[in-house]
Amino acid sequence: MTVSTTLADTISGRVLVGDDIPVAYRADRSGNRPDGEPRVLIIAANVDDVRRAVSFAADAGLSVVVRGAGTGLAGGASAGTGSMVLDVSRLDRILEISPTDELAVVEAGVSAAVLDDAARRHGLRYAPDPASAAISTIGGNIATNAGGLRCVKYGVTGDSVLGLNVVLADGRLLTTGRRTVKGVAGFDLTSLFTGSEGTLGVIVSATVRLQPLPVRTVTIAAHFDDVEAAASAASAVLAARVRPAMLELLDAASVREAQDFLGVRTDAAGAFIVAQTDGFGAEAEAEVVAATFREFTSRLTVGADAATADELLAVRRAALPALQRHGRVLIEDIAVPRSRIADAVRRITEIADRHASRIFTFGHAGDGNLHPIIVIPEHDDAAVERAEAAADAIFSTALDLGGTITAEHGVGVLKRRWLERELGPDSVEIQRRVRDALDPGGLFNPGKVL
Amino acid sequence: MTVSTTLADTISGRVLVGDDIPVAYRADRSGNRPDGEPRVLIIAANVDDVRRAVSFAADAGLSVVVRGAGTGLAGGASAGTGSMVLDVSRLDRILEISPTDELAVVEAGVSAAVLDDAARRHGLRYAPDPASAAISTIGGNIATNAGGLRCVKYGVTGDSVLGLNVVLADGRLLTTGRRTVKGVAGFDLTSLFTGSEGTLGVIVSATVRLQPLPVRTVTIAAHFDDVEAAASAASAVLAARVRPAMLELLDAASVREAQDFLGVRTDAAGAFIVAQTDGFGAEAEAEVVAATFREFTSRLTVGADAATADELLAVRRAALPALQRHGRVLIEDIAVPRSRIADAVRRITEIADRHASRIFTFGHAGDGNLHPIIVIPEHDDAAVERAEAAADAIFSTALDLGGTITAEHGVGVLKRRWLERELGPDSVEIQRRVRDALDPGGLFNPGKVL
Repeated sequence: MTVSTTLADTISGRVLVGDDIPVAYRADRSGNRPDGEPRVLIIAANVDDVRRAVSFAADAGLSVVVRGAGTGLAGGASAGTGSMVLDVSRLDRILEISPTDELAVVEAGVSAAVLDDAARRHGLRYAPDPASAAISTIGGNIATNAGGLRCVKYGVTGDSVLGLNVVLADGRLLTTGRRTVKGVAGFDLTSLFTGSEGTLGVIVSATVRLQPLPVRTVTIAAHFDDVEAAASAASAVLAARVRPAMLELLDAASVREAQDFLGVRTDAAGAFIVAQTDGFGAEAEAEVVAATFREFTSRLTVGADAATADELLAVRRAALPALQRHGRVLIEDIAVPRSRIADAVRRITEIADRHASRIFTFGHAGDGNLHPIIVIPEHDDAAVERAEAAADAIFSTALDLGGTITAEHGVGVLKRRWLERELGPDSVEIQRRVRDALDPGGLFNPGKVL
Repeated sequence: MTVSTTLADTISGRVLVGDDIPVAYRADRSGNRPDGEPRVLIIAANVDDVRRAVSFAADAGLSVVVRGAGTGLAGGASAGTGSMVLDVSRLDRILEISPTDELAVVEAGVSAAVLDDAARRHGLRYAPDPASAAISTIGGNIATNAGGLRCVKYGVTGDSVLGLNVVLADGRLLTTGRRTVKGVAGFDLTSLFTGSEGTLGVIVSATVRLQPLPVRTVTIAAHFDDVEAAASAASAVLAARVRPAMLELLDAASVREAQDFLGVRTDAAGAFIVAQTDGFGAEAEAEVVAATFREFTSRLTVGADAATADELLAVRRAALPALQRHGRVLIEDIAVPRSRIADAVRRITEIADRHASRIFTFGHAGDGNLHPIIVIPEHDDAAVERAEAAADAIFSTALDLGGTITAEHGVGVLKRRWLERELGPDSVEIQRRVRDALDPGGLFNPGKVL
């Protein structure tokens, strides 16, 4: 095949075409299945491969679907008819760690967890911690501006990105940003590429901030009578003007599932919050958090050692795998202003009733970011329809409450038809102009986001 | 005059033309004087005025130079031949403060200091604190992505901006961003407008984050034998993995000038650092800072009350006014990676010798952001030339050390010819494309930044 032979001569990595492309390369973890099949898969071995692949795709009239670990939840890496899948996960070197400047330069395929481990040897850490930190890539994290558990204090992925190297549609390698924490020379192209979901260029490496490992971390876990009480307690903690490093909430049904999954038999029922404070003031802040929780519940545990913390966090971590036992899951990702968390939770419960769907809610209460999980039993087409109607109602609720349809997972293909309702036609039109300016031929990820 | 009569009918604010335009409206505080004079000045009373003014300018073939308080230091608000000056400083209402959501919605003409005062009544504060906080506008702060003293812990202006309302070149009002702290629906247009120096649109209002007032603040001041010792001490504090909320450095000459200006007669000579720690761990962090400083000096004061803090900060605050007594000042604004602060300071001293210029250096050591101040005696043309050569050498030094020509003041007209050297031609070309996409007619601030 011509594609194969032309490319094989110039690409150091692997080139696969047609039926040789593994099925897994067509989709991410969103559940979205694209129409048709990709024409070619490039597993890039280096930046030159990426540049050559992009130029080849442009010449051959193929679209380019960039792919890291394929753990996206919005269909941003879905690759259908006429596409080239460009896998950059093997660009996985940590190029530099500078303890004095507290930064790292990493290729796109490094995982947040691997970088974090490397930083730890210098008393530092990479703060962004998406739940997928061990399996996703930093390139993907940046492309979606991924969130995580520590955002409430340390910000999202983009807050740790100082600069990028990006392969543009014409094959050029663009450098954005800098190594200094401040800098205002020119437009903020770094933030423009961050969260652009593969539609503006291919992120091949990044300069990211590292942060001091906190000297102390204190974990507080509490059970509440119901999820509204828990949501109110979370809001009260934030109103107490402390800055927890983590403030995670699970409704009672999620807790039951997680405990069952873990084989834990306890009388600790009800909605659950696990919070952490860290840094020099960790104990003092934990006291404020605990005192605030006590206004809502007496079922409280405070622990300062790592083993206890892991134990208290285990329920939170088990929630999603526990639910995935029961069928296909739709993982939603709304955020609302923090004062509306309890309202959002109440409305989601009503939506579940109205659409006869099983919806479990947990998420990052500190950011007002909730993940309502709609569980769809296998082989139940009617349930799929009800779930989709429920998802629509959840998006409406998020917007009604002044929030967003996606806090940290991205738009991809799944939320595209909702984008204009959130942003309005003018914003979508301006975004399209920006996209056309950077990728006039529509090479990168057509049909995604906009 | 037609301009005047046509506009006067539609604008609620003021319309001035030709010689009626006060001279002060032609320039900012950069010292830059544009060629020619603006044709019309609009002092907008509301957003509709801004939209009408922009549409009028587009129709009349005038460029639009947006202006807040005119305190810019890079010539971004210089208004010459063929321009309309659009003053948005009277859009000065705080539209909302939400204590529970920890955000404010403000018009562009509100000053950071006024917002901060209003937030304080709710136990909150607006963290960005450019030195001009009392006299500049938030719209201008956002347009330049202004820094300040607290950035080392709380980030720059952009880190507090959640969303914007911007009047586009075609008169439309675009809303960007959201009220939630997380959100990834679409491209990050908020960051694109932030720091765009009036070249992409007119920022008329903003949704900004507020933060809890720290429960405690501790101030530490220290004198060092020389500025290199001070710079090394600053780097050592950062390497000690504490997060001071402020870490300001002054060289010995600046300290002498400031003390003289304040009428303080002390034996406290040498380079100076004033640092603050804040929050629940303020005392513990202050102990680490003080212990680190003691490795470099024994001349140390630690104070936890506000009066002592003001006293210790007074020298820092007096530095610039002290120098401005001696003639015109060129205020440079470089940043270098934090490990290179001492190198930068050493090289600036050499540059001062080589170019026979008086250069005083102080700045935000915590960010590697130095403000070398070149003092030019009045009526000394040769000194102006030497100063400009010295400024060029300072820019080169910043880039050599892996830094930037502007950390927080912006490019404006003064640093435009340096921009490509920092960013490279590809980046400049991409930025131009983005600018053309948003402002195809080149209406906004032509000749600035790019």
